[in-house]
Amino acid sequence: MQHWDSLWTNLHLATMQEGYGEIRDAAIAVKDGKIAWLGARDALPLNYQADQQHDGDGAWMTPGLIDCHSHIVYAGNRSDEFEARLNGVSYEEIARQGGGILSTVRATRAASQAELMQASVTRLQYLLREGVTTLEIKSGYGLDLENEAKMLRVARQIARDFPLRVSTTFLGAHALPPEYAGRADDYLTNLIEHMLPALVAEGLVDAVDAFCEKIGFSAAQTERVFQAAHRHGLPVKLHAEQLSDQGGAALTARYQGWSADHLEYLSQDGVHAMQASATVAVLLPGAYYFLRETKLPPIAALREAGVPMAVATDSNPGTSPMTSLLLAMNMACTLFRLTPLEALQGVTRHAAQALGLQDQVGTLEIGKCADFALWAIQRPADLAYAIGANPCVASVFAGRLRPKI
Amino acid sequence: MQHWDSLWTNLHLATMQEGYGEIRDAAIAVKDGKIAWLGARDALPLNYQADQQHDGDGAWMTPGLIDCHSHIVYAGNRSDEFEARLNGVSYEEIARQGGGILSTVRATRAASQAELMQASVTRLQYLLREGVTTLEIKSGYGLDLENEAKMLRVARQIARDFPLRVSTTFLGAHALPPEYAGRADDYLTNLIEHMLPALVAEGLVDAVDAFCEKIGFSAAQTERVFQAAHRHGLPVKLHAEQLSDQGGAALTARYQGWSADHLEYLSQDGVHAMQASATVAVLLPGAYYFLRETKLPPIAALREAGVPMAVATDSNPGTSPMTSLLLAMNMACTLFRLTPLEALQGVTRHAAQALGLQDQVGTLEIGKCADFALWAIQRPADLAYAIGANPCVASVFAGRLRPKI
Ligand SMILES: [Zn+2]
Ligand SMILES: [Zn+2]
Repeated sequence: MQHWDSLWTNLHLATMQEGYGEIRDAAIAVKDGKIAWLGARDALPLNYQADQQHDGDGAWMTPGLIDCHSHIVYAGNRSDEFEARLNGVSYEEIARQGGGILSTVRATRAASQAELMQASVTRLQYLLREGVTTLEIKSGYGLDLENEAKMLRVARQIARDFPLRVSTTFLGAHALPPEYAGRADDYLTNLIEHMLPALVAEGLVDAVDAFCEKIGFSAAQTERVFQAAHRHGLPVKLHAEQLSDQGGAALTARYQGWSADHLEYLSQDGVHAMQASATVAVLLPGAYYFLRETKLPPIAALREAGVPMAVATDSNPGTSPMTSLLLAMNMACTLFRLTPLEALQGVTRHAAQALGLQDQVGTLEIGKCADFALWAIQRPADLAYAIGANPCVASVFAGRLRPKI
Repeated sequence: MQHWDSLWTNLHLATMQEGYGEIRDAAIAVKDGKIAWLGARDALPLNYQADQQHDGDGAWMTPGLIDCHSHIVYAGNRSDEFEARLNGVSYEEIARQGGGILSTVRATRAASQAELMQASVTRLQYLLREGVTTLEIKSGYGLDLENEAKMLRVARQIARDFPLRVSTTFLGAHALPPEYAGRADDYLTNLIEHMLPALVAEGLVDAVDAFCEKIGFSAAQTERVFQAAHRHGLPVKLHAEQLSDQGGAALTARYQGWSADHLEYLSQDGVHAMQASATVAVLLPGAYYFLRETKLPPIAALREAGVPMAVATDSNPGTSPMTSLLLAMNMACTLFRLTPLEALQGVTRHAAQALGLQDQVGTLEIGKCADFALWAIQRPADLAYAIGANPCVASVFAGRLRPKI
């Protein structure tokens, strides 16, 4: 006799174990926040007891969605700059007026932790409503110990205050803070010797990231950051090959990185290096769209090499002010020609792998966390097809129905 | 002593009368469903009485949004086709399997009016939640009298059942129904002699539209439809220059059309013709995006000629499965380089003009309908800047607060 906390019936499953892993007219049981049983309803054991019974009302259930690359914690926004640019003001003029990423750094530094929390939650709610149950959150607008810590504390607070798994990423090497202008290596020394150890000691860091680009940090500088991460036993990931080929993906692969992200300028060598190290390719079509990039990431090569592809929002004020993971799925299909299946894998099983959480979330499988999203759709492809819709009718975190917000 | 039904204070207005028409710390009063007063709060008359007082909580108020080009009434969806194409199945093969627009025609013909209503309302709710208070709805998936009437009755029913203005458009000349294959002129004769008069007699038609394209109807065929519309005293509009230059915009201008829509292949002559007739250019960036079109509409020429530009969703299952007017605004800026002001004009005052409703809606002005949207934003440009957010906190139709759905 099996005893379950809850049992869902009258639904279809996309388990994402193999392809969509469709099971029609299914049942799924939860015990202690984990999946205890799943299968066709008519294969339910003869003897079971469920404390709660839920009627899925014919919906499709997928794993809770995972946004594996976000900068959702920041203050201010950059709509003024967006408007100025469209009115013909040059990037140079905007920079002279203090615009660009440093305006977000200023606003984020000026905000209290409570203000930063409030601004972030406004964005977070859109992701929660779309069935996101795991979210990666990066620092990178503080650029000093106090403010990077403030951002990461907000990320941890979000995990305490909302039914959501949060994976934190220290992105101190996002940009050079103004007080270190012209002294990038000195900044990194400070980052490595002071900022990172203190943040690790406070338990704020799950992974370490950098922006490896001509306008960011060089591959050699990035490697210093990776070495420091490894000394702390932390996994790495990288903003790589977004605007040019810096060999960042191959570097990330050498450090067994969880993911290399963006990848518009990824070379075939980079693809092979990622393949060898099982590094996930995180595609960020929102930034591609917003920047009107025309060079596509090498999707066919990644597909052929069997590199797992994830899809994320890159939610940030400068290059992807996007708070819809469903829209990122559509953009991945429309702009990058992913299939709807690849897009859904990209926000479930492959996104889990990009966060080192593949044993806990990302598929519907016995023993994994009971994080679910329920959808009023006809078939799983609807999730990537619709633009601006949100058919999420319910979501479940660790076995518990999340309140509507 | 002025006596108002309701008064809103503690808000900022974007009246859209001239530019944004910003009034900070404003007040706006409603009487009998119309705007009775508006201005700075400290300019309120000394003596007034308001039956209801609303606190705007610091929000921005704009005119209720207007989606002036939609095909929101249809049955079925085409995510299967979307998925097949991304899996490498050719258009020809999909057409051979009965896909494309005719699959939507089949599903729409097969649906009862109640089923069609239900399917449409699922999409409608997304627009209502974004503060849309006026919606154009086209027929065009019935392609015979019975089913075109069914679609337009659903459009009228939506106007009865929801707090929303609906402008109906008869688009019988959308595609050739299979039973008339190879006999386009015979179909148009039927459309002109039987379908249109019956639909007009039932009060179902506010305007007449056609799809003027190599794969649709020729300019000469379109003109037959326009002449019939004018015989009934109905205004016209046109799907023009989407895939090629057929001279459709100039033709529409000759018939004093409300709007020419799409316009990627619009010529300079077409721009001048539209300018002379005050025909609105309705831009549909969702279709441009979804079809991965690369030819941009001639925005600079339209702007220079002073042709009013509207922005709409084109919500339809084949080429723009989009149900977010805010996202259409962002796409208009990101892809077409409209300014945020032009994008907001495009879904307010210019969209009103595209529906012949400029005396009733589209700006906040004394005497106009009290259709409002309230936004938790810092500035009006935020509406076009954010991707996938919905900061609409309340909306008002004819002076009444709409229920949240
Ligand atoms: Zn990023
Ligand atoms: Zn259309």
